[in-house]
Amino acid sequence: MTLLTCKGFRAGGIAAGIKKNGNPDLGLLVSDHPACVAAVFTTNKVQAAPVLLDRERVKSGMAQAIIANSGNANCYTGKAGMDAAVAVTAAVAKTLNIPEDQVLAASTGVIGAPFPTSTLISAIPRLADALNENSMMDLAHAIMTTDTRPKVGAREGAFGGMSYRIVAVAKGAGMIRPDMATMLCFACTDADIATDDLNRALKHAVDVSFNRITIDGDTSTNDTAILMANGASGVKIETPAQKTDFQRQLDDLFMDLARQMVRDGEGVTKVVDLVVRGAKTDADAFRVADTISHSPLVKTAFFGEDANWGRIIAAAGRAGVDLDPDQLDLYFDDVQMVRAGTSCGMEAEHRASQVLKKPEFSVTLDLHLGDAAASLLTCDFSIDYVKINADYRS
Amino acid sequence: MTLLTCKGFRAGGIAAGIKKNGNPDLGLLVSDHPACVAAVFTTNKVQAAPVLLDRERVKSGMAQAIIANSGNANCYTGKAGMDAAVAVTAAVAKTLNIPEDQVLAASTGVIGAPFPTSTLISAIPRLADALNENSMMDLAHAIMTTDTRPKVGAREGAFGGMSYRIVAVAKGAGMIRPDMATMLCFACTDADIATDDLNRALKHAVDVSFNRITIDGDTSTNDTAILMANGASGVKIETPAQKTDFQRQLDDLFMDLARQMVRDGEGVTKVVDLVVRGAKTDADAFRVADTISHSPLVKTAFFGEDANWGRIIAAAGRAGVDLDPDQLDLYFDDVQMVRAGTSCGMEAEHRASQVLKKPEFSVTLDLHLGDAAASLLTCDFSIDYVKINADYRS
Repeated sequence: MTLLTCKGFRAGGIAAGIKKNGNPDLGLLVSDHPACVAAVFTTNKVQAAPVLLDRERVKSGMAQAIIANSGNANCYTGKAGMDAAVAVTAAVAKTLNIPEDQVLAASTGVIGAPFPTSTLISAIPRLADALNENSMMDLAHAIMTTDTRPKVGAREGAFGGMSYRIVAVAKGAGMIRPDMATMLCFACTDADIATDDLNRALKHAVDVSFNRITIDGDTSTNDTAILMANGASGVKIETPAQKTDFQRQLDDLFMDLARQMVRDGEGVTKVVDLVVRGAKTDADAFRVADTISHSPLVKTAFFGEDANWGRIIAAAGRAGVDLDPDQLDLYFDDVQMVRAGTSCGMEAEHRASQVLKKPEFSVTLDLHLGDAAASLLTCDFSIDYVKINADYRS
Repeated sequence: MTLLTCKGFRAGGIAAGIKKNGNPDLGLLVSDHPACVAAVFTTNKVQAAPVLLDRERVKSGMAQAIIANSGNANCYTGKAGMDAAVAVTAAVAKTLNIPEDQVLAASTGVIGAPFPTSTLISAIPRLADALNENSMMDLAHAIMTTDTRPKVGAREGAFGGMSYRIVAVAKGAGMIRPDMATMLCFACTDADIATDDLNRALKHAVDVSFNRITIDGDTSTNDTAILMANGASGVKIETPAQKTDFQRQLDDLFMDLARQMVRDGEGVTKVVDLVVRGAKTDADAFRVADTISHSPLVKTAFFGEDANWGRIIAAAGRAGVDLDPDQLDLYFDDVQMVRAGTSCGMEAEHRASQVLKKPEFSVTLDLHLGDAAASLLTCDFSIDYVKINADYRS
């Protein structure tokens, strides 16, 4: 998979024995040289130990490695959890012979379980041996929890005959809502870009991708998106045109990963592009979209392939935003279901029921009150979502 | 069932042919004489025609009948829907020989479907013939949608050797969250109480009952709670002591109905008394309880009988309220799971897993930041909830 290589970065993933089922659960991403770093973290008041540690360490603007495990969130684990995160990063630093404060950590899995520190630390030499410039897919596998597929992507940009790459891995599946970064996303680029610019680019890309998807409305204590830039391609990102190109590549890559996450969301059978337009303000548009996208009645109707548009209207009505029921237009793909507050009848209903049979479709609600709009990528709520989450720890 | 009688009130319920399956779908509650009336309606911006009609009619403070149907919400039906509501109440008024503006209406069922006005109107004479002082249970049956059991209750108070009664029917099951009245609740009392006092009493009773339960977080376009008082018992509610007694009876009755609703919520297998205490403000306490009670991850863990307390902590953390993770205490019934931010270990986990096997239990989260508290009656999120709502219209 040459597509997933990025100059000067190596990755690895192994089964360290954290997961009971023997699946890969420990991954590492390393830059050969110190890299600029930008990061976005969860806004939950309860934050995992690695999140608290990384928040401090990224302040330097530089990092060289990320150690990530699945199977245990190292959250709500008290002082022992923080000691564990520090010890694991110290072990990585020692093995790689790099400064301890250049190593970031990320964890995902059950909250509140004791962290298996020694299991992790004893596996680090083996993980370091597995590091390879072609092993990004192994890292993607190692951070999976209820994901059924690894999430990876790459983009390439070029200036004056020289090209740079951005490569990223992510995990999703559950505990996702739009006011957060994703669960975990590690991205690297061989472009040469200053930390400040990297931070702006990361924030923008997260806003248009991971902050625009929702699976179940829950938000994690561990959400982390990290972007490292080591400049190994020799391509400098300095001019406005270069920055625009870099942003476009990064946004596109993250939107791709976000869609992969929703498609592989827990129990998802339908992926829905929800658009609310004609709102008075962006905030109003977002609030209506947010309410519709989290309504269990709307989501179960999607699962049932039922064009029950009344539930969408009812959800919009409780969003706490001014709206005029008599002005609403509603579409499933290009099939108009409601025009100026009136049902378009059985013919439209019949055509819409065909739309809902598709695995991906759009829902568009026009409030006709202004020019603001918001879009969210959402999904259905299925029997399998309940099964997966009722049995998660057992 | 003499328990469900209330002097001077008659009720009835029949199958009018609105529901495809031939179940009862049309009910009537009538006072022999004009009664004082109080009502609480949905706060959804999209409101059904009968809600809009009733809002106007209850302004007079008097009413004599309520006509209620299931199987069709008469919502988002435009001018035709309002015309239908007016026509149905006019037909009831004519049949009962009472003024049209003394008849209230309520509907529940699918939103946006054309209202079967002539089917309803042609059934009204038969419904009037069925009116009986012992038929409150028939009314309860007629307003059921996905409810599996009718919801009824009665309370009795006494002063100076004379007694008064309050009797109520309700429907619940889905589209319920705590910032609303219930779906439908019709209550009547033979006490003699002024409209202003009746309004205050109703509002308080709704606040401590239907506004404190949540099933799926969705809110209906049709929610209506109506209380009629016809004074037929001759017991006046005037003094502070009398008002306190009346309020206590009404609160108790509504809390009983609210619990019946959650127990019979769509797919519910667990009823959970959720208490958040030690908050800085009542609003904070409510917001944390609201977030926990709507978390799909928490609710599916209840369904799985999994004492996954980390999900409760994580939901509290995203409630947008100040909290200190290191001060939290968490209990399942009297089993303490978390003390000052630290897990109480495997022994507690084992005992908690026994608690979660019960059909009803409590969850208590203490923030240790102040004296404010909030409680909500909530439930699990089951496979059957998804099945019921995926197939609702088919």
